[in-house]
Amino acid sequence: MTAQTPGAEFPGFATVRTRIDGFLDDFLTHKTHTADTQKMPGEVPRTLHDFLFAGGKRLRPLLCVAGWHAAGGHGNPAPTFQVAASLEMFHAFALIHDDVMDNSATRRGRPTVHRQLAARHQNGRSTATADHLGAGAAILIGDLALAWSDELLHTAGLTPKQLRAVLPLIDTMRTEVMYGQYLDLAAAGTLTDDVELALTIVRYKTAKYTVERPLHVGAALAGADAPVRAALSAFALPVGEAFQLRDDLLGVYGNPATTGKPCTDDLREGKHTALTALAFRRASQDQRKSLTGLFGDADLDEESCDRLRGILTATGARAAVEQMIQSRCEQAEQALARAPFPPAARHALHALARAATGRTA
Amino acid sequence: MTAQTPGAEFPGFATVRTRIDGFLDDFLTHKTHTADTQKMPGEVPRTLHDFLFAGGKRLRPLLCVAGWHAAGGHGNPAPTFQVAASLEMFHAFALIHDDVMDNSATRRGRPTVHRQLAARHQNGRSTATADHLGAGAAILIGDLALAWSDELLHTAGLTPKQLRAVLPLIDTMRTEVMYGQYLDLAAAGTLTDDVELALTIVRYKTAKYTVERPLHVGAALAGADAPVRAALSAFALPVGEAFQLRDDLLGVYGNPATTGKPCTDDLREGKHTALTALAFRRASQDQRKSLTGLFGDADLDEESCDRLRGILTATGARAAVEQMIQSRCEQAEQALARAPFPPAARHALHALARAATGRTA
Repeated sequence: MTAQTPGAEFPGFATVRTRIDGFLDDFLTHKTHTADTQKMPGEVPRTLHDFLFAGGKRLRPLLCVAGWHAAGGHGNPAPTFQVAASLEMFHAFALIHDDVMDNSATRRGRPTVHRQLAARHQNGRSTATADHLGAGAAILIGDLALAWSDELLHTAGLTPKQLRAVLPLIDTMRTEVMYGQYLDLAAAGTLTDDVELALTIVRYKTAKYTVERPLHVGAALAGADAPVRAALSAFALPVGEAFQLRDDLLGVYGNPATTGKPCTDDLREGKHTALTALAFRRASQDQRKSLTGLFGDADLDEESCDRLRGILTATGARAAVEQMIQSRCEQAEQALARAPFPPAARHALHALARAATGRTA
Repeated sequence: MTAQTPGAEFPGFATVRTRIDGFLDDFLTHKTHTADTQKMPGEVPRTLHDFLFAGGKRLRPLLCVAGWHAAGGHGNPAPTFQVAASLEMFHAFALIHDDVMDNSATRRGRPTVHRQLAARHQNGRSTATADHLGAGAAILIGDLALAWSDELLHTAGLTPKQLRAVLPLIDTMRTEVMYGQYLDLAAAGTLTDDVELALTIVRYKTAKYTVERPLHVGAALAGADAPVRAALSAFALPVGEAFQLRDDLLGVYGNPATTGKPCTDDLREGKHTALTALAFRRASQDQRKSLTGLFGDADLDEESCDRLRGILTATGARAAVEQMIQSRCEQAEQALARAPFPPAARHALHALARAATGRTA
């Protein structure tokens, strides 16, 4: 479908967020009620509800709905909203497991799920036992979020044709993001100049997962053809890469009060990013020695973090990443200008791209 | 459908296992090839392949195929075999995450996945860092097994009607087993006389997950009606409970050479089972003191484990659990005798029930 097909009017982000949140709220409230009446652990849906409503930009659901509009979606939008909500539930899974794997303490300005659960089940247990129980419970809550993202999708009232179009995309999206995460995990802790690996991780873990696939899923619900899918990819991949590169900068230079997480985690964890790979590549011998000594040290104090930041900036890596973000944003804008989308969808995608790449949180 | 519908001949367990394994092998070999050519982590499908082919009774897939036959399934059996394989892939997910949560060292006579990966990625890392990386990688490999169980299901060539019948069952099964696991996790470490809680865990974590739902899934593929589903449940729940009660006994009294896992894990972990709850309920004051002192101590030596086993036996709890297994087996046999299944399916279910509840491994 192209701009010539009359699509529905894009309803505005606040309205879309409210609809998405309505589906998530209804689903988890129902799960809580069922669990409580069947002596099942209502703590699981309650924890997920708290997690989902503590924040989140709903970027993936918004893009899913935008993809539907871009492909000329019309008629009842409710199934698309529910599928969009299922992407947010999947994202909750990804974040909860991510925090366990990174042993992060804070997310969205609160203790992470595994930390909350360790504290809640402390009674009489040693700290080590409670921490292990907290991690186990968080793994399971993540697993349930993944299973429930499927349930939201399966109960969205899709036609057989829509289901046939969407299921393979969801399967692909999951493999991509989990593979990206796996590469990320294996690369952490060792400082190298492998910018290509950092960009592969960016592409799979973020660009495809956060931007391209949500757009494709929405478009598939509207019966998009190959040219529309390709136009969405041409826009999505540079936006998604810029989004992650911005995230990498915020992870090091961001204001914790705005991002909701400490800007020391990535440095202590030794996260392999384009920023660190470029810095290592450009560093003088002295800078390289300092970088290797500090990066990935779990006990790094604030002062050493500041020193590390200073070196990353001094090598020119920070400016180079800003430049990479800039050129990707331009590439996305050009792709959007050429794309066969209805004007309202184009406008929405333009706004989402700006929000995703220029953000401070 | 009932016994009057001419169903396909049940092909024999060895044949079914070979077919199931063929689907798993093909799927993971293809994933490995794709990962290797796309610079994605081929370690993931390779590790899963090793894990799946290191052992496993394929009980859930066998039951799925038996359910299809019980409901009079006929025509091409390949989609049913592939759906059955997807249940085994899901089970790999469950076991891998389970081992991370329990911090188990051994499974199927080998190091668990998280231990293998910690060793493989040791190079230059501290033991603690490698262990944490191993756990993270195992969580991700488990996540991929879950996502890939979906992919196996989605690509099984089901009709829209079959898909509509199976997806809600899969959703329910997942919530049940994860909730059961959550209750299990939260109950571990504290010795109580709550036999009812232990049996709730048995029902959700095992009876429904391992026996009832695989049968239902297979039956749904054959278009089973409500009476067939109910007859399957009447057989499945007692068999599944007996299976788990047998597992609990093997976890404490089993021969590690046969079970492939140490018979000290459950005692050290303080696993809450009908066996331990009954023992606590029946214990004298002195026995209760010893039980509380020893049970759930992570550093329990072999001798103390032996003492603990002695007390569990002396309270009569072991004999009581054997009795519970016996009565459930009888109940299942009676249900099977009344069930409207074709003779070949009835015969297969009888054999599977015996294998599941009388086993030594």
